[in-house]
Amino acid sequence: MNAGTNPSAAPSGPQERLPTLNWRFEFGSYAKTRHFLDQMADLSKREDYYPNVSFGKTYVNISIDAEGQVVLAERKSSFMGEMEALVTADRA
Amino acid sequence: MNAGTNPSAAPSGPQERLPTLNWRFEFGSYAKTRHFLDQMADLSKREDYYPNVSFGKTYVNISIDAEGQVVLAERKSSFMGEMEALVTADRA
Repeated sequence: MNAGTNPSAAPSGPQERLPTLNWRFEFGSYAKTRHFLDQMADLSKREDYYPNVSFGKTYVNISIDAEGQVVLAERKSSFMGEMEALVTADRA
Repeated sequence: MNAGTNPSAAPSGPQERLPTLNWRFEFGSYAKTRHFLDQMADLSKREDYYPNVSFGKTYVNISIDAEGQVVLAERKSSFMGEMEALVTADRA
């Protein structure tokens, strides 16, 4: 297998890229999972930012890559904090 | 799509596991992506089957692992066909 070159060649250096941030949230039921996903969809629309999301019946994984982190920082977006607050609220 | 293996055959050896089936659907906008996800959620509820789903702003990936394929086959579920029909309908 050829390791291949980086197709999206970062302008600076690959070492300087921020690592992707990942969250994993677990829920007690599909209803709770879906409720969280609906709230996340509203948050994405409000902040105009769409992270990569993967989910199954009782879990949701969210990934925000380096590019996303830069975009959110530049906008001073509270996306990450609001996302975590949603989970806390759902569990209260 | 599935080449004539019997998915409800007794689980004899790990070599005989069905490969995970993966779909990737692309959409022209986040609104279309979300519409599809909402319809998928309804389908999952109706069929009581929850595949692994990952999505971003304009794409959705669906994975159905060996276990899921066996469950759907045993129930004679039309989950996969209905899922594909949703995408076709969305694009019409």
